[in-house]
Amino acid sequence: MSLEHRIADISLHEAGRHQIRLAEHEMPGLMALREEYGDAQPLAGARIAGSLHMTVQTAVLIETLTALGAEVRWASCNIFSTQDEAAAAVVVGPHGSAEDPQGVPVFAWKNETLEEYWWAAAKIFEWPGVDEDASRGANMILDDGGDATMLVHKGVEFEAAGAVPSASADDPEEYRIVLETLRRSLGENPQRWTRIAAQIRGVTEETTTGVNRLYQLAREDALLFPAINVNDSVTKSKFDNKYGIRHSLPDGIMRATDVLLGGKTAVVAGYGDVGKGAAEALRGQGSRVIVTEIDPINALQAAMDGYQVARLDDVVGSADLFITTTGGKDIISAEQMRQMKDKAIVGNVGHFDNEIDMAGLAALQGVQKVEIKPQVHEWVFPEGHSIIVLSEGRLLNLGNATGHPSFVMSNSFANQTIAQVELFTKTGDYAGADRYDTDVYVLPKILDEKVARLHLGALGAELTELTKEQAEYLGVDVAGPYKPEHYRY
Amino acid sequence: MSLEHRIADISLHEAGRHQIRLAEHEMPGLMALREEYGDAQPLAGARIAGSLHMTVQTAVLIETLTALGAEVRWASCNIFSTQDEAAAAVVVGPHGSAEDPQGVPVFAWKNETLEEYWWAAAKIFEWPGVDEDASRGANMILDDGGDATMLVHKGVEFEAAGAVPSASADDPEEYRIVLETLRRSLGENPQRWTRIAAQIRGVTEETTTGVNRLYQLAREDALLFPAINVNDSVTKSKFDNKYGIRHSLPDGIMRATDVLLGGKTAVVAGYGDVGKGAAEALRGQGSRVIVTEIDPINALQAAMDGYQVARLDDVVGSADLFITTTGGKDIISAEQMRQMKDKAIVGNVGHFDNEIDMAGLAALQGVQKVEIKPQVHEWVFPEGHSIIVLSEGRLLNLGNATGHPSFVMSNSFANQTIAQVELFTKTGDYAGADRYDTDVYVLPKILDEKVARLHLGALGAELTELTKEQAEYLGVDVAGPYKPEHYRY
Amino acid sequence: MSLEHRIADISLHEAGRHQIRLAEHEMPGLMALREEYGDAQPLAGARIAGSLHMTVQTAVLIETLTALGAEVRWASCNIFSTQDEAAAAVVVGPHGSAEDPQGVPVFAWKNETLEEYWWAAAKIFEWPGVDEDASRGANMILDDGGDATMLVHKGVEFEAAGAVPSASADDPEEYRIVLETLRRSLGENPQRWTRIAAQIRGVTEETTTGVNRLYQLAREDALLFPAINVNDSVTKSKFDNKYGIRHSLPDGIMRATDVLLGGKTAVVAGYGDVGKGAAEALRGQGSRVIVTEIDPINALQAAMDGYQVARLDDVVGSADLFITTTGGKDIISAEQMRQMKDKAIVGNVGHFDNEIDMAGLAALQGVQKVEIKPQVHEWVFPEGHSIIVLSEGRLLNLGNATGHPSFVMSNSFANQTIAQVELFTKTGDYAGADRYDTDVYVLPKILDEKVARLHLGALGAELTELTKEQAEYLGVDVAGPYKPEHYRY
Amino acid sequence: MSLEHRIADISLHEAGRHQIRLAEHEMPGLMALREEYGDAQPLAGARIAGSLHMTVQTAVLIETLTALGAEVRWASCNIFSTQDEAAAAVVVGPHGSAEDPQGVPVFAWKNETLEEYWWAAAKIFEWPGVDEDASRGANMILDDGGDATMLVHKGVEFEAAGAVPSASADDPEEYRIVLETLRRSLGENPQRWTRIAAQIRGVTEETTTGVNRLYQLAREDALLFPAINVNDSVTKSKFDNKYGIRHSLPDGIMRATDVLLGGKTAVVAGYGDVGKGAAEALRGQGSRVIVTEIDPINALQAAMDGYQVARLDDVVGSADLFITTTGGKDIISAEQMRQMKDKAIVGNVGHFDNEIDMAGLAALQGVQKVEIKPQVHEWVFPEGHSIIVLSEGRLLNLGNATGHPSFVMSNSFANQTIAQVELFTKTGDYAGADRYDTDVYVLPKILDEKVARLHLGALGAELTELTKEQAEYLGVDVAGPYKPEHYRY
Repeated sequence: MSLEHRIADISLHEAGRHQIRLAEHEMPGLMALREEYGDAQPLAGARIAGSLHMTVQTAVLIETLTALGAEVRWASCNIFSTQDEAAAAVVVGPHGSAEDPQGVPVFAWKNETLEEYWWAAAKIFEWPGVDEDASRGANMILDDGGDATMLVHKGVEFEAAGAVPSASADDPEEYRIVLETLRRSLGENPQRWTRIAAQIRGVTEETTTGVNRLYQLAREDALLFPAINVNDSVTKSKFDNKYGIRHSLPDGIMRATDVLLGGKTAVVAGYGDVGKGAAEALRGQGSRVIVTEIDPINALQAAMDGYQVARLDDVVGSADLFITTTGGKDIISAEQMRQMKDKAIVGNVGHFDNEIDMAGLAALQGVQKVEIKPQVHEWVFPEGHSIIVLSEGRLLNLGNATGHPSFVMSNSFANQTIAQVELFTKTGDYAGADRYDTDVYVLPKILDEKVARLHLGALGAELTELTKEQAEYLGVDVAGPYKPEHYRY
Repeated sequence: MSLEHRIADISLHEAGRHQIRLAEHEMPGLMALREEYGDAQPLAGARIAGSLHMTVQTAVLIETLTALGAEVRWASCNIFSTQDEAAAAVVVGPHGSAEDPQGVPVFAWKNETLEEYWWAAAKIFEWPGVDEDASRGANMILDDGGDATMLVHKGVEFEAAGAVPSASADDPEEYRIVLETLRRSLGENPQRWTRIAAQIRGVTEETTTGVNRLYQLAREDALLFPAINVNDSVTKSKFDNKYGIRHSLPDGIMRATDVLLGGKTAVVAGYGDVGKGAAEALRGQGSRVIVTEIDPINALQAAMDGYQVARLDDVVGSADLFITTTGGKDIISAEQMRQMKDKAIVGNVGHFDNEIDMAGLAALQGVQKVEIKPQVHEWVFPEGHSIIVLSEGRLLNLGNATGHPSFVMSNSFANQTIAQVELFTKTGDYAGADRYDTDVYVLPKILDEKVARLHLGALGAELTELTKEQAEYLGVDVAGPYKPEHYRY
Repeated sequence: MSLEHRIADISLHEAGRHQIRLAEHEMPGLMALREEYGDAQPLAGARIAGSLHMTVQTAVLIETLTALGAEVRWASCNIFSTQDEAAAAVVVGPHGSAEDPQGVPVFAWKNETLEEYWWAAAKIFEWPGVDEDASRGANMILDDGGDATMLVHKGVEFEAAGAVPSASADDPEEYRIVLETLRRSLGENPQRWTRIAAQIRGVTEETTTGVNRLYQLAREDALLFPAINVNDSVTKSKFDNKYGIRHSLPDGIMRATDVLLGGKTAVVAGYGDVGKGAAEALRGQGSRVIVTEIDPINALQAAMDGYQVARLDDVVGSADLFITTTGGKDIISAEQMRQMKDKAIVGNVGHFDNEIDMAGLAALQGVQKVEIKPQVHEWVFPEGHSIIVLSEGRLLNLGNATGHPSFVMSNSFANQTIAQVELFTKTGDYAGADRYDTDVYVLPKILDEKVARLHLGALGAELTELTKEQAEYLGVDVAGPYKPEHYRY
Repeated sequence: MSLEHRIADISLHEAGRHQIRLAEHEMPGLMALREEYGDAQPLAGARIAGSLHMTVQTAVLIETLTALGAEVRWASCNIFSTQDEAAAAVVVGPHGSAEDPQGVPVFAWKNETLEEYWWAAAKIFEWPGVDEDASRGANMILDDGGDATMLVHKGVEFEAAGAVPSASADDPEEYRIVLETLRRSLGENPQRWTRIAAQIRGVTEETTTGVNRLYQLAREDALLFPAINVNDSVTKSKFDNKYGIRHSLPDGIMRATDVLLGGKTAVVAGYGDVGKGAAEALRGQGSRVIVTEIDPINALQAAMDGYQVARLDDVVGSADLFITTTGGKDIISAEQMRQMKDKAIVGNVGHFDNEIDMAGLAALQGVQKVEIKPQVHEWVFPEGHSIIVLSEGRLLNLGNATGHPSFVMSNSFANQTIAQVELFTKTGDYAGADRYDTDVYVLPKILDEKVARLHLGALGAELTELTKEQAEYLGVDVAGPYKPEHYRY
């Protein structure tokens, strides 16, 4: 098989295959799905256009999808996040070689330009022969952040309009490139995206951001195909956020600074799932944790868990460590950073880098930025004291450590895989395939429970089974689901 | 004012007023509502028929309702749970005396018979003159478990049928008494409940059990008035269950047994909110905690929180302490109790006493029950070894300790109070009073947040306020609500 | 056998025997010693004068001593601490009855006068016939606080002087009674204590206070016989203080106040072993803990364990709970109590009641003391706010709960028993009986380790055994001791 | 000033000075000593021969010693542990440059040969002119592991004998090199070490190993000068071991494997201070921790802290992670490693690499060692499954992370500095200089307390001061020391 691919250096594949082999051990959910569905091949016929950080864990996801019968093409959803050895390993495949790659076409490498990024985003839809016959192209999307989905929707919109508009002055630079990409496409084939979209049975979306876009499309009646919101599975949101951060936050701080966390005073901004995991990790290292919150319910939870709940301004001068976990913006202002103790450490594990006002910091008169090492900078104020900012205010667990561990991603990606199977097998021409309308769905609770179930064995956890009598007494099925929809876990 | 009342001994009122004064300090939510609404009197005109454990905390609730303008009549929702001094104190009121009671009519005392219980349940609807003019009677119900609500619904049903049926052989003894109560009523006034029901604007319900009954009535189109499900407010379910049990479980075990929890192995059956609180409390005392679970998601949470997850049969012979938290039945069988270590301790903080198979235990050939002290029994097996069972398998935090602390109940009861205000002021003849149809509602999230907000000050927790820009960025209002409905906290 | 005894009511014995039976299960150290030494009877010939709180746990100690062959007479070391049912049960013995007591003479009851207390202290030395032949009298002392030891030493001193001095004006009231007791004795038998002392092989002392007295006697060359300092065994000081308080502090607060500890701010004064246990217990209940310390090493430990370390004056107005654990005095002044929040809770688990300035509090102009219930008092300041003081400032874990659990005391009392065997069998006429000079000793580390060893099985803890090679590598014996003397655990 | 030095590459100095500046902020103890003693110059006249890992933290120590007036020469105590940039920075000094170094002579670089190592060890005593006039040479030693001290003692011994013996067949290779070094010295100057030793006032020793050697010399009456055992200061042993490991163990595992610790079962072999820190760190990450112990007291502590205590053989097949912390040998055998789960992780933070039987593992027939990355190896058993061994069985917190954080080392090194001042100013010709005989001492408790005191401010911890009355009541001085010698903290 000859592969169309574009990665930086396919010779990295051996290191990648090695890491994949170790990651597989920590991703029991995906491996169990290969075991369970390997014979049935529920994704046979599925052609999945995937857009998600091209890491070692994603490699295990991709090869799970192919093990279930799918054909796959892949791009990353972030210009920096590709691990080149993982990309190379996926292209080569478990049994191929650099000379004879037998894996999956991957269009991703570390440090892409924005032009390259959108070229790759389009590339995952360019199945061979798709322009001649759209039914040869992608029929499923697996998305993270919604860029692939957006490309299809915008493509259809502009093809209907017959023209791609010019970028306005207010549009971000990146949008200009999207428009260019689609303008070029329109020139090549004025019905390309319309035909592709018609073939797509659905999308499964990984993140809050992507999910918000989908709900907005649905509200505007503009959604083109069914979508499954993977983000809000319990085994995704509650696990990824809380247990992932509990691991990767101290990992990132330690790698970046080697500063003893014990005895330090740490401010955690936000006590959602990410904040809960952050606070637990820091307390587990002997830090004294102070929480800031805007939501009184979460604030009360923090107090009940034994943390001081304060306003940032009241503690900004006495804490040693400041971690934002909010998803909001301007959580820490430049002026507040200036008021911090000498060598205070500031980092973000929330969402965008605007949680910490990095722009404001850089704009302070007389401030100096000194690189201690990559992703670790000392910002020296004109008064002489300084603070340490991690990962330039971007996600420090990615920038200073390696992000979520494989086991956590196994939960998220088992949801993705199950969602792909669910959508692909319950839409289209299949019998009983009318389960999903053109709307946004979360996975049925029983599938959420299934994801959890697949991860218990690896931890040696033994599940108790309800008797028939007990299940009747509770008004549930022996096999689940066990809880009402509004149950909060 | 002359009061119609029936309590065991009104002379207990001084002790009760003392306790109420201390409890008020620990119920900042209710006290803040008195402060906020004292002038506006939003419950002026409300006549509330209340059925909820007549404890010191409930006394603070009752006097909060009257401080907001309501007239109230009260019964307990359990034959054992009344604290007589609290009942006496409520009857006397803050400014009355035993000779000149100026408080609220209470029909409750410790250790009622079932006949007395249902007499009292009817009594809270017998407002003076109500038989002549139903509009003088109750127009709101505040319920715990749904007995008061059920009495009204059954009364209406039988009045429509023109007759009260006989109890069948399968009906529990208690239902026979309910039927008798209604049969007597039908004889006295064949339209009493029909007329009362027509005046009732709604019910606010405290518990899972009561809420389940309400949803069933709604599904059967038999619900007679709107209902607010207080149980599923976050500040009720997540606080009451988790933080209440974290306190009252070790309290109960310690008072009952004086056994050192440190170093012991404890099995916690169930890792819902109650189980989470139980496990945290026991770990906090140095116990090694093993969790049993039937739900794979909760099981995975337990594993991620560092607990061993096992099946009861695999650890029944090696643990020292067994606590059920499930709401299910037959969680611990008689045979399993027989296999336990000598002097193992068994207790329940779940729901009904059938979580532990007490009937099966009592039926074991040759078993002997020895009372160590009230609510603490040693069950000696014929083989010679024995176990200690707390509170006869009923809720040990109630039986061996004093139940949920006031601060926890302040959260639940602030929800109740707000729900009463919400229903009373947004139904009936008020402008904009069409907010609630005849259905079951949870409180709007913003009111849930308000309950939390009212409890922060007492804990010294300082809430951060969003700027307008931050709120817009998040797509929420500065004043809340802050989270989507499906958010799990 | 006819017993000379004096207890309040011997008919309480059944309840006491019941409690003893349950306590035995929680005192595996003592039960294991009975098993190990039952046949050898190492205490045959020992006549032990015991002075230690006459509780259920002490009953198990006494019956362990007799099971090892000793004859015993017992008094309490505190006028309030006797549990009458335990005393009665010991007098009756496991196989006797109220009519035919077959146990040990006990001279103790709850609420003794000081005269009665010192009468009893003398009584434990009045073995039948001892005045005729001192070798029929006590030859061992088991002491708690040193009163029995002091009585012997003062008796000898005054007999040598030929007269008992008068109490001076500065002497406390209690010392006057001691002098009277000895003056009476001198009149009856001018060589009684001299002869008794000559027979005594040694004393084993339970507490810091008693141990300090012994070291002082040794420094002054006034010690009359060898002494073993049981207090400083690791399995006593580190277990009793830390793990005992971790249990009994929350137990006492909960029983006294029913106040939710979760979310509260608690100040723990002192971070020694007691403070460490207190802080851990409160954090385990979700309190935010602030530590005050005078010792910089302990302060640094508190900080490293994640607690805020502050001065009392800086936090006195914002905390909800104040617990002293220091052994010092005036830790909380009356003025500081006045500055506390309304309904702040104040309690002591340190040593004497002067940790909290109760006298100063009572002397405040206009302060009012209201009894909420026994051992729980509200002190109302003239400004109107009030605080809750537990157990009148005395040890709240004793006054509001039941003191240390049996398992903790099993460690302390196994040390006592082993110390009695050690002293009795390695002094006197025995071969190799020159192990102990007239000095104060701690138990050899290997016996400390033995006490720990005896408690592992009951907790299901499996000890690893060194191989001979491993032991040689470490330079220790396979059987222990394993650590150098200065090891801190 | 012209320096005699030998480091790999002095041009690294800028990076080193940068790191030193950051480390100074995390070493408040050393910086406070510079502040306190900067004017008094108590080490003026001291010429310190230092042998201790040449890291960034040690650089701060060295420059503290010089700030107090000392002249210093330095070697590393381990052939691998030098950080070259730190060495370069020390040589250059804060105000020098690569062209004009103004710092301290350092004889250390990463990856020395054994010959180079012992050359360097001798070099720190070769003060210019010392062979002509020994009083120009070193008069103090600062040692880690005792190699520098041993060199002096052996030198004196062989000079007295007039000859250096040949190495015997049993002697380790390294000893042969020591003998050669001394043989060469004897040829050059037959009284060199005798004269040097006569000038040395004392040694301060960092580690257990070195301390054991010193006690042995003292027992054999062979010690040549007083020694201070820095290792057993509370602020060294209890802090370095417990809080250092709590940080660097998870750091090392995470950097090495990226494996999620949450939900995993971890076996910690040993529950001394290192084991306590390891267990706390793992529990803080959501691992379930099982402890193995040979000492019953430590085992009981582990049980009381809520950990399962088991034998390795009973859990070897079910755990995911195995960490040795014992200081013993053969804690995990090759056969036990073979029985582990596939991909189990094995690491050591105890002492030598023989805690894990690496030799036995390598000798297993058919086993394969695969390098995942440096210091992380997969050992594949012939049966097909494999385990991951970190740092080849050597200290993983050094090999896979960066060892103890600066703040921890600030405690240890403040003890070193104070011990140098103590010995130097209280020996020799000084008035009152007879404080120290030729024996091994621990630092007086008040100096131990001083070290703690110096670290509180940086953590924002506020110490309470005793009043004169309180101090008298406790029988201590207001300024300390506060505890008896046997106090265990």
